[in-house]
Amino acid sequence: MRRPTIKDVAERANVSLKTVSRVINNEPSVLHGTRARVLRAIDELDYEPDAAARNLRSGTPFVIGLVYDNPNPYHIIGVQNGVLAACRETGFGLQIHPCDSTSPLLADELADFAQRSRLAGLVLTAPMSERMELVEALAARGVPLVRIIAATRDPEDGHPCVYVDDRDAAYEITEHLIQLGHQRIGFLWGGLAHLSSTERYAGYEQALADYNIPLDKHLVVPGDYTFDDGFRGARRLLALREPPTAIFGCNDEIAAGALAAAKSAGLNVPYDLSIAGFEDSPFSRQSWPALTTAKQATEEIARHAARLLIARLRQDAYDDHPMPVHNQGFAPQLVVRGSTAPMRPRPPESRPNE
Amino acid sequence: MRRPTIKDVAERANVSLKTVSRVINNEPSVLHGTRARVLRAIDELDYEPDAAARNLRSGTPFVIGLVYDNPNPYHIIGVQNGVLAACRETGFGLQIHPCDSTSPLLADELADFAQRSRLAGLVLTAPMSERMELVEALAARGVPLVRIIAATRDPEDGHPCVYVDDRDAAYEITEHLIQLGHQRIGFLWGGLAHLSSTERYAGYEQALADYNIPLDKHLVVPGDYTFDDGFRGARRLLALREPPTAIFGCNDEIAAGALAAAKSAGLNVPYDLSIAGFEDSPFSRQSWPALTTAKQATEEIARHAARLLIARLRQDAYDDHPMPVHNQGFAPQLVVRGSTAPMRPRPPESRPNE
Repeated sequence: MRRPTIKDVAERANVSLKTVSRVINNEPSVLHGTRARVLRAIDELDYEPDAAARNLRSGTPFVIGLVYDNPNPYHIIGVQNGVLAACRETGFGLQIHPCDSTSPLLADELADFAQRSRLAGLVLTAPMSERMELVEALAARGVPLVRIIAATRDPEDGHPCVYVDDRDAAYEITEHLIQLGHQRIGFLWGGLAHLSSTERYAGYEQALADYNIPLDKHLVVPGDYTFDDGFRGARRLLALREPPTAIFGCNDEIAAGALAAAKSAGLNVPYDLSIAGFEDSPFSRQSWPALTTAKQATEEIARHAARLLIARLRQDAYDDHPMPVHNQGFAPQLVVRGSTAPMRPRPPESRPNE
Repeated sequence: MRRPTIKDVAERANVSLKTVSRVINNEPSVLHGTRARVLRAIDELDYEPDAAARNLRSGTPFVIGLVYDNPNPYHIIGVQNGVLAACRETGFGLQIHPCDSTSPLLADELADFAQRSRLAGLVLTAPMSERMELVEALAARGVPLVRIIAATRDPEDGHPCVYVDDRDAAYEITEHLIQLGHQRIGFLWGGLAHLSSTERYAGYEQALADYNIPLDKHLVVPGDYTFDDGFRGARRLLALREPPTAIFGCNDEIAAGALAAAKSAGLNVPYDLSIAGFEDSPFSRQSWPALTTAKQATEEIARHAARLLIARLRQDAYDDHPMPVHNQGFAPQLVVRGSTAPMRPRPPESRPNE
């Protein structure tokens, strides 16, 4: 006997394909009687759309999981809110799953999380989303997923993603500082495990090269995406015999840490030191002065990612009606605020002894 | 025929009661073969512990829901992390559900969320947790819940909770400012819907009264638990003919907003103006100067609340073994940092014209 299709269900229940898919996807807009008729037809035909849709038969809504490992509350809340927005549009639920991205058993843990909790799919954030062996391992276990990654273009590797062009935005920030007259520009790294850090560094390096400013390795400091690392990194830069006149922090928390370090050293930002961040988190408007940054639409990016996953799950659930789903790129934009200003030439007598 | 009990299951599977309850609670520590034997016994006996445990038969872990309506990312992440810690200890999953606390249909929405998503129970945060008609409505619909509330003592109203003595801590903060010599102390409210605001105000008012300082209504400004309201409120206070020499913001975001307002007015904190916050969120250490505040163990409080809920769910699941569960109180503690300092007497000539 051939396997029943969604069309058989629609005919038996005497409704449209769209209505069947609405019931399968547990959308709230279906009349009670119609829903009951469709569920009866599904039951009588023993129709099983696929693994992901199977537990919808019980009437339990789809639930997706959000996987993150990030020290930054504003970023996490932004991502959560974006994913929740997509969930609300579609009646999906959201489970959250912070994890340790350095765990060697991460693929097992995440596959187990998805399977035990009967999740329809996962939204992976960086750095998990950027580890191809993890992505491949989850895909091999049949866990549907979508990734949020840092990349200048669509990786076209067969796994759905949204990609953020961090490099170009970091180039813009560095160029902005150069155009203000700064030549000694410090760079405070975010977490090395995140491609966003690598990409932002690449943008910084490229802008310096294009403006013929030699790269001084002393001005580049490793660290993580935290306020404390920004504070420590900036203190190290400010203690140099020839300190920078501007600092580019890899995100707003780092930049805010640099701002605190500057204040603790008695410097007046932006007149003694320019500071720029990245992300345009609420944080960047809550420091004084407010931070020059790159506006990254974190919530919108996460919302698009969740939609991509949900569209794919729905496509799986009724392959008669494939939905067009595309990877999408986002480009953060320079936002100039009070923390950056033209380079103030130092009077000769104030130079440190050299 | 009498309804089968957990003892029947244990006998048939030839395991201890504890092992059956472990399987029912889906704890990870049970051997695969033992788990299968217990599940077979449950199935053969048609044992149904209760509604909450019913869907465990399918092997799906318990999931609880966290309900919040709060503008403060650091606070939300702190609560989430605490609830997640309790979930991890017990193998529970967590769904998150931000809501609009002013919605007239909130009881329906939350009951629907719990039932559709087959949640075992809800953790309610303020202000939802403090609206008794909502708590009663959810309880009447059989939704197990635990509340995190602001209260000086256990309300003993029959609904489980953890309670935070905001009043006493606010008294301590106000007293600290008074002991530094401040007499004109501004108070910036958090959201009126939150009992924590009312309680913190009560502590402020009581400390002033105990030190015979008359309450000046011009020094008390309404607002919400946000940086922006702290900024606006502080600007209003600083524009008074006789501005305060200290400001107590109802949480750290408000205090950080007040700090930015002070800087934008050219004031040097703490020498021109002392500022204190409340909660000891990471935020309070990331401003410059760092904020004097009340250390509230947000994560620990939320963890205890989730444990209380989980203990109750487990008790429901095997009433042969009632677990002792108690409401618990938490008392935030004063933490003095750089944003508060002794009152600096103003020279007579700098007084505003009166």
